[in-house]
Amino acid sequence: MSLSTALEFLREADKLKAVLRQTRVTFDPERRENDAEHSWHLALMAVVLVEYAPPGTDLLAVLRMVLVHDLVEIDAGDTFLYDDAHAASKRERETRAADRLFGMLDEPVRGELRAAWEEFEAGATPSARFARALDRVQPVLQNVYTDGASWRAHGITAPQVVAKNGPPIRAGAPELWPHVEAMLEEAIRRGALSR
Amino acid sequence: MSLSTALEFLREADKLKAVLRQTRVTFDPERRENDAEHSWHLALMAVVLVEYAPPGTDLLAVLRMVLVHDLVEIDAGDTFLYDDAHAASKRERETRAADRLFGMLDEPVRGELRAAWEEFEAGATPSARFARALDRVQPVLQNVYTDGASWRAHGITAPQVVAKNGPPIRAGAPELWPHVEAMLEEAIRRGALSR
Repeated sequence: MSLSTALEFLREADKLKAVLRQTRVTFDPERRENDAEHSWHLALMAVVLVEYAPPGTDLLAVLRMVLVHDLVEIDAGDTFLYDDAHAASKRERETRAADRLFGMLDEPVRGELRAAWEEFEAGATPSARFARALDRVQPVLQNVYTDGASWRAHGITAPQVVAKNGPPIRAGAPELWPHVEAMLEEAIRRGALSR
Repeated sequence: MSLSTALEFLREADKLKAVLRQTRVTFDPERRENDAEHSWHLALMAVVLVEYAPPGTDLLAVLRMVLVHDLVEIDAGDTFLYDDAHAASKRERETRAADRLFGMLDEPVRGELRAAWEEFEAGATPSARFARALDRVQPVLQNVYTDGASWRAHGITAPQVVAKNGPPIRAGAPELWPHVEAMLEEAIRRGALSR
């Protein structure tokens, strides 16, 4: 791939730093984190927690996935996990974005990154299940650490948190789920999460 | 490593999102990027540009390095590349920070991440040279794309940019340097960088 082509893509990717999520940063519950910060945090989690990944997980594949999994949101915007109405159009919006963004690259990187995004979305491999579990654990933890700042802002309840996050976390990082559940119980006791 | 230990470290790491660099984001030259965004951008660059890495480069090692290379700045703060006075105390400040931060982890991850940080700092392996080159290319590009926002704010001149960035970029991604040089020439012509 020519350098100009690669650098144009990397310049476009800079816009991920402008895509705000509902999740807050721990040191300032007013401040929403952006997708670039979130992606970095997931990558660090993968490196630190890899011993909790399912058998057959490939750390390099996980890292590639978490680094690119939200790039489509440059065009498609962030879809809040609990926004089911918006979620209905998510796949179509994001596929169009993937066509444009990964299409800026030449082969073989174009195919590699597109495949990483598709693998993450499908969640069928051990690596993808681990990556998807981390993508669910991280916002739950950020909420726990900020006294439920984003949950409270959107009136999210404990059954919603469990329904959305339990299955993917159990599927991709089973030992993490009881730990997360205990943190949710504690958040309920503290009033950070409503029953 | 126990989950509690791992998660406490990952919570502490969240503070990297609060460490501001001098570099700006391309879509808002007033906005300084933080170390977490920067680290994500380097990791994506590594994946996209790996064909330009020196022979013997290990992409997974590069990713581990760029993901953790700035963690020490949670305690030590960001040292601006052109601030030679501040740079004198950098090693000592950052070693103390590495002791505290990586010391929060248990083995084997503690040793792995500490070794990754040391490998990056030493810059002796092909992987480290590539990681260090990316760490120099990225801020130069962000400056080029923002009409020299950070260069102009600090009165940085072209000879300073070349002196600080030329050697590490030539050492770790030699084919990138002529391309970067051409971009610097263009920045000088446009008045974004003073001679």
